[in-house]
Amino acid sequence: MSPATHPAHPVPRAGPPHVGTLKSGATGTLADVAGVRVGHCTLDAGAVQTGVTVVMPHAGDPYREKVPAAVSVINGFGKSIGLTQVDELGVLETPIALTNTFGVGALAQAQIRAAVAANPRIGREWPTVNPLVFECNDGYLNDIQALAVTDEHYRAACAAASHTFARGSVGAGRGMSSFDLKGGIGTASRVAEVQGTRYTVGALVLANFGRLPTLTVAGAPLGRTLAQRLADAARPTEPEKGSIIMLIALDAPLDARQLRRVSMRAAAGLARTGSSYGHGSGDIAMAFSTAYTLAHDVALHHVPALLADAHLDPLFQASADCVEHAILDALWQATTVHGRDGHVRMALRDAAPDLVSLP
Amino acid sequence: MSPATHPAHPVPRAGPPHVGTLKSGATGTLADVAGVRVGHCTLDAGAVQTGVTVVMPHAGDPYREKVPAAVSVINGFGKSIGLTQVDELGVLETPIALTNTFGVGALAQAQIRAAVAANPRIGREWPTVNPLVFECNDGYLNDIQALAVTDEHYRAACAAASHTFARGSVGAGRGMSSFDLKGGIGTASRVAEVQGTRYTVGALVLANFGRLPTLTVAGAPLGRTLAQRLADAARPTEPEKGSIIMLIALDAPLDARQLRRVSMRAAAGLARTGSSYGHGSGDIAMAFSTAYTLAHDVALHHVPALLADAHLDPLFQASADCVEHAILDALWQATTVHGRDGHVRMALRDAAPDLVSLP
Amino acid sequence: MSPATHPAHPVPRAGPPHVGTLKSGATGTLADVAGVRVGHCTLDAGAVQTGVTVVMPHAGDPYREKVPAAVSVINGFGKSIGLTQVDELGVLETPIALTNTFGVGALAQAQIRAAVAANPRIGREWPTVNPLVFECNDGYLNDIQALAVTDEHYRAACAAASHTFARGSVGAGRGMSSFDLKGGIGTASRVAEVQGTRYTVGALVLANFGRLPTLTVAGAPLGRTLAQRLADAARPTEPEKGSIIMLIALDAPLDARQLRRVSMRAAAGLARTGSSYGHGSGDIAMAFSTAYTLAHDVALHHVPALLADAHLDPLFQASADCVEHAILDALWQATTVHGRDGHVRMALRDAAPDLVSLP
Amino acid sequence: MSPATHPAHPVPRAGPPHVGTLKSGATGTLADVAGVRVGHCTLDAGAVQTGVTVVMPHAGDPYREKVPAAVSVINGFGKSIGLTQVDELGVLETPIALTNTFGVGALAQAQIRAAVAANPRIGREWPTVNPLVFECNDGYLNDIQALAVTDEHYRAACAAASHTFARGSVGAGRGMSSFDLKGGIGTASRVAEVQGTRYTVGALVLANFGRLPTLTVAGAPLGRTLAQRLADAARPTEPEKGSIIMLIALDAPLDARQLRRVSMRAAAGLARTGSSYGHGSGDIAMAFSTAYTLAHDVALHHVPALLADAHLDPLFQASADCVEHAILDALWQATTVHGRDGHVRMALRDAAPDLVSLP
Repeated sequence: MSPATHPAHPVPRAGPPHVGTLKSGATGTLADVAGVRVGHCTLDAGAVQTGVTVVMPHAGDPYREKVPAAVSVINGFGKSIGLTQVDELGVLETPIALTNTFGVGALAQAQIRAAVAANPRIGREWPTVNPLVFECNDGYLNDIQALAVTDEHYRAACAAASHTFARGSVGAGRGMSSFDLKGGIGTASRVAEVQGTRYTVGALVLANFGRLPTLTVAGAPLGRTLAQRLADAARPTEPEKGSIIMLIALDAPLDARQLRRVSMRAAAGLARTGSSYGHGSGDIAMAFSTAYTLAHDVALHHVPALLADAHLDPLFQASADCVEHAILDALWQATTVHGRDGHVRMALRDAAPDLVSLP
Repeated sequence: MSPATHPAHPVPRAGPPHVGTLKSGATGTLADVAGVRVGHCTLDAGAVQTGVTVVMPHAGDPYREKVPAAVSVINGFGKSIGLTQVDELGVLETPIALTNTFGVGALAQAQIRAAVAANPRIGREWPTVNPLVFECNDGYLNDIQALAVTDEHYRAACAAASHTFARGSVGAGRGMSSFDLKGGIGTASRVAEVQGTRYTVGALVLANFGRLPTLTVAGAPLGRTLAQRLADAARPTEPEKGSIIMLIALDAPLDARQLRRVSMRAAAGLARTGSSYGHGSGDIAMAFSTAYTLAHDVALHHVPALLADAHLDPLFQASADCVEHAILDALWQATTVHGRDGHVRMALRDAAPDLVSLP
Repeated sequence: MSPATHPAHPVPRAGPPHVGTLKSGATGTLADVAGVRVGHCTLDAGAVQTGVTVVMPHAGDPYREKVPAAVSVINGFGKSIGLTQVDELGVLETPIALTNTFGVGALAQAQIRAAVAANPRIGREWPTVNPLVFECNDGYLNDIQALAVTDEHYRAACAAASHTFARGSVGAGRGMSSFDLKGGIGTASRVAEVQGTRYTVGALVLANFGRLPTLTVAGAPLGRTLAQRLADAARPTEPEKGSIIMLIALDAPLDARQLRRVSMRAAAGLARTGSSYGHGSGDIAMAFSTAYTLAHDVALHHVPALLADAHLDPLFQASADCVEHAILDALWQATTVHGRDGHVRMALRDAAPDLVSLP
Repeated sequence: MSPATHPAHPVPRAGPPHVGTLKSGATGTLADVAGVRVGHCTLDAGAVQTGVTVVMPHAGDPYREKVPAAVSVINGFGKSIGLTQVDELGVLETPIALTNTFGVGALAQAQIRAAVAANPRIGREWPTVNPLVFECNDGYLNDIQALAVTDEHYRAACAAASHTFARGSVGAGRGMSSFDLKGGIGTASRVAEVQGTRYTVGALVLANFGRLPTLTVAGAPLGRTLAQRLADAARPTEPEKGSIIMLIALDAPLDARQLRRVSMRAAAGLARTGSSYGHGSGDIAMAFSTAYTLAHDVALHHVPALLADAHLDPLFQASADCVEHAILDALWQATTVHGRDGHVRMALRDAAPDLVSLP
C-alpha cells in the first residue's frame, strides 16, 4: 500500500465558510507559518484505512535545534506519547507525528530510529530523545487491530513533507470520522497584528470527534438539519469514541509558558464547532513557535525579545479561529471512505453536495 | 447602602433564546439543583456599584458537611482565594462567595468569622477553614479602590440566600460589564438523563468579560450587528480587563475527579458566546455535587454509587449549555448602571430593546 | 536470550538497613499487598543488558476490572506512555510495564496486543486500551540503540508474574545504574495502622539515578565515604541521565484523588536517599489501590467506604518510607553487570562488601 | 503591640550544622541574593503571638518591575492567595507576604492598598494587582480567632525590610511550631557554579510543621532521641495541623518554567528534615529570580540569555540544600514563646541546650 495512490499536492477543494474577523494567510494552511512543512503517508488497502501525518517545525534537525512548545490537555482520554517531557522542558525535539491509537508505539520507535540515525550519540553520550506521537481512534473504518502502521510509513510521511500538502481523508486522517461524517486532516491560518507587527498563526487538526446533531458551522446549527436529512446515511452507530488533536504553529516570539496559553485557546475553537469535550474524546492541543530555536548543547539560550502577555489577545483569537476553521476544513476536504467490514463513512461533500461548493 | 433598594425576588424578566437541545429545569436557575440557594447584597451608592453574591450548596453547615467540588482554571488572570485546597482535597467548606477583585480579602475574613462563629473549635482543636472567594474586576463602573465590601455585606448576602433570587445587575454583578454592555449575574439549568435517571445541572455566572463585536447568541453573531448600531453607546473604552466566574452545581453522584471534568466543560459554553479566553480575563470554573456530603470528623466516607465516567456525556453537554445560557442570561437580565466618574454601562434591554422581549 | 538464566525466585539477599519506624510486611516486597504480582524478563546477551518488568495489580483482567490509580510527575524528563489518561480517568487498565527508554513503543504495542487478545472487542465496539509503560535510560550498560525489547519479552514477563520475584539486576533493572553503582529493581513494604485497621503499603522502584557522593543510607552520608574509597571503580563518567520510576500499591480504600496524594510522597522517599530530582532524571511516581476495582461496562460504581483524608498520614509515611527503602534495596540486591563497549557497573556488594551483609 | 520589642537586627545566633557540599553565601541568608530584603512585624501581646514577614524581591516597585516567579504546591492544604495568577503569568507583582492563616485576607487588602497608593491607576486604567500572601496556622500559641493582623502590620514589616533581618520567633514566625518545638523563620544560602559562573541561591522558610520523632538533622535522627528526653515538654498535643512555606530566590537568569522546576526542589529539602508532606500541612514553595525584571507596560520583553535546563543541577542542589538548612535554622534560631491559654512552645535551644551552641 502506498501514498502514491493519493496525489501528493492536490488542488485544494473549496473550503468551509471563513470564521472570525481575522484574515487568512496566503494559502490558508499551517504552512503559512514560514518553515513549517506537513507530510502524509496514507494506507488505503481494504480493511486498512489509516496513515501517518507528520509536522516538521523547521528544515533543520529538530533534536539539535529544538523549538519551544507546550500542550493543553482539554480531555485526557488519549494515548499520546511525549507530553510529560514537553510539559517539563517546553520544547519539541522530533517532528510531530499523528496516527491511529494503536500506531503510537510503532511511530515512537520510528522517531527514535530516525533521531539516532541523524545523531548517533543519542542514548550514548547524549540524552535520549523524546518521541512525540498523537493519536485518534479510527477503528470504525480501519482495522485498527491489524497494527498496520510501521516505521516505513513514518519515513514516507517525513519524506513527503512539504509546504503544500493534501487534506481530508489522507495521512493520519484516512480513517477518521467526525460528526458521523468523514473527518480527517484540516488546516487553516490567520494573520494577527500585535503592536504593528503581523504574525502568522496556523492550525492543523486531526478531527475524529463529534455527533452530527451538534455540528455547528460558523454558528449555524447545520448538524441538526443534516441529521434529519441523513437519518440513514450518517446515523450514530455507537457512543462517541473519537478524539481530536489540534496543532497550532506561530511565528511570534513566545516562550513555553505563553505557548501553553496559546494551546489552551484550541478549546474555544473546538467548542464553537459543537463539542462539549466528550468523555471518550482525547482532546489535546499543542502550540509551538518558529520564532527561534534552542540549541541542544549550549549553556545559555539567547532568546529574542518576547511578546508581553498583555499583547497576546490577537494571537489567542487567531488560534481559536484557526482551530475552528481547521475542523470545518477537515469536513469540507474529506472524501468518502469505505473501510473494514463494509463500514462506510460518507463525506460531507457527498452527503450534502449543495452545502459544499465543488471546485 | 442596602440590598433593600433591589427587590429580593423580582419577577424574572424574559430570558435569552434557549441554547442546546436539553430541557431547562423548573425555574431555569442554579436553584433547580435541590438545596442550592443564592443570596445577594448589592451596593448601589454613587461611585460604589458593587456587591456580594453567595451560593449555599445545602441548608446545613458547609464546614461540617462538605460537598465534593473541583475547579478548572481556564485562564488564570485572577485573584480568587481557596482554589489550592479545593484542588488538593476536593471539597468545599464554606459558601461560595463572589465579589469584586479588591473585596476578596474582606470576604475571606468574613467567611472565617462566620465559620468560627458556627464552629468555635476551628483554628483551635479543629483545622482552619478554607475561605473560597471568586472575583471579577468591576472597576469601570465601581470605585474599586474604595474597598467598599465588608463583612456586613457577606452576612447580608448569606441571610438573603433563597431558592429564588434576582439576576443581572445585582450582588457581585452590580458593577460588572460584559461585551461592552452591562453584565452581572446570570443563571440557567438543564435536565440530563443518564441511564434512565434524570439529573439536574445548574449554572450561575458572574459575567464581566468580552468585547461586543465577538458576542455570539445561540450561534448568531449578534455582537457584530450591535457594534455597528451602538458605535457610541457601547464602544470599547479600554483593553479587556474582565473575567468570568462559572459555577456549576449538579445532583449527580460524582467525585472530585469527575467534577473537575465537569467544570472544564464551562470552557465550551464560554467559547460559544464569543470568548477566546482573553489574556486579562480570569476565566475560572467550579463544579460541585449535592448528591452527598462528607462529614468533617469521620474516618470513613460512605460514598453513594458513583456514575461511571463513560456515562458523563449528558452531564458534560448540560454543563456547557448551562454556562452558555447563563452568560446570555446575565446580558438579558441586566439593567443599565451609572457608576463612578460618569461611567455608564448600558443594558442590552436598553441598548437594543427590539432584541429582548420585555415581560 | 532468556530469563531462565536468572533464577525466577531466588533467595532474597540481605537487604539494606530498615528505614523509618513502621514495620515491614511479611516478605518486604510490593507483593505484600495482596494480589499484586511482579514478573521479569531479563535480556543478558553481551551488549544487550536490559529487560522488562511487569506489575499485575490483581489476578483478573485489568481492562475489565480497572484499579484506581494516579501519578505524580516529580521531574518530567521522561518518555513514559499512558499518564495522560490515568490523570483524566484515575484508573489503570493494563499491567504496569517497565523497560528501557527505547522499549516503550514496543511494550505499548505488546500491551495493546495482549489486551485485544483477551478482549477482541477493544478498538471495535469497546474503547481502545491505554498502554502504560514507564522507562529509564540504561544506555551506559545496554546497547539501547539496538531496540532489543519486543513483544515476546513482555509476554515472558507477564507469564513469570508471581508473588515472589527477584530484584536487583533483573528485568527492566538489568542495565540500570544508580549512584554510579549498579541499580535496578528494589522493593519494600510497610504496615500502617489507620483508626485500628492495618493496611499494607508496598513499593517497587526501577532505580537509575544519582551520583555516588550524594548517596544517603538511612540518613548516613555513605556515598561520600564510598566515593573516596572507590575513586576509580565508580567514578562519574558522564552527567546524570538517569531516572527513577516509583510504584506504590496499597490495600487501603482510596480514590484517584487520594492516590495522587499518596504518589506524591514518593518524592520524600526519593529525596532522603540523596536526590534533588536531577534535571535529566525522569522521576515519576504512580500509586494504585487494590481495595476495589471498577468494572469497565457498568453505569454505576459501588465504591467501598473510603478513608477520610484526615487519616492518611500513616499511609503517607509508609509510602515515603517504602520508596526510600526500595531504592536502597535496589542497590543492595544488585549484582555487577558487564555491558556494551566494556562498560561495567559494579554492584555495591562487590564495591563495598563490608557494607553489605551477604547471606 | 510593636515590633520594637524585638531588636530589628539581632546578632545571629549559632546555626545548625551545615548541610550538603555547597558553600554558604556571605551571610547565610536569603539576602545574599543581591537586592532581596526581608522585614518583620512581630505581634507579642499575651494571647496574640503572631506577625507578618515580607520579602522584597528588589528595591523598585514590584508592580511596575515584575520578577519572574513560579510555585510548586507539594501539599495543597493551604489558604494562600495569589498562586493562580503566578501560575498563569509567571511573575510576582507585590512583595511576598507571610502571616497566619486567618491574616491572609487582611494582608491581601493591605497589599492592594499599598499597590494602589504607589500606582493610582491600578484598577482603573491599569489592571488590578495580584496580592500574594502565604500562611501557616499558628493557632497553638496564637489566638488566631482574634484576627489580629492588620494593614498596619504589613506596612511596618515593609518599612522594616532590610538586608539584615532577625530569624526564629519573629514576624510571621512568632507563633509557629515545628517538630513539637518552637518553629518560625529560618534562612540559608548557597553558592552554586554553573559553567564557570557563580550564582547565589537563598531560601527563607516559615516552618510550622512536623512531629518531633521524625526530626532529622543533617541525616541524624535527632528527633527520636529528643522525643524520649523531652517526653513531657514537647509531647504531641494534637494531630499535625502545620504547614511550611518555602521561598527560594536566586540571581541566575531563568524563566518561569525553569523557576517552577527550581521551586519543586524544595520538596527534597523538606523531606530530608523528616517530612512526608503530612495531610494537614500546606507545603508550598515559590522560586523567583532577581536576574531581570519585566516592565508592566511594554510590548516586548528583552530577556537576558537564559541558562539551559541541562545546566540547572547545581541550582537544584543548592535549592534543596538551602531549604533543608533553612528549616533547621528556624529551629536553631527560635526562642521559647508563651501564648494563649497557657500554651508554651519550647525552643530547641532551651529544650536541648547541649545540642545548640549558644553564642
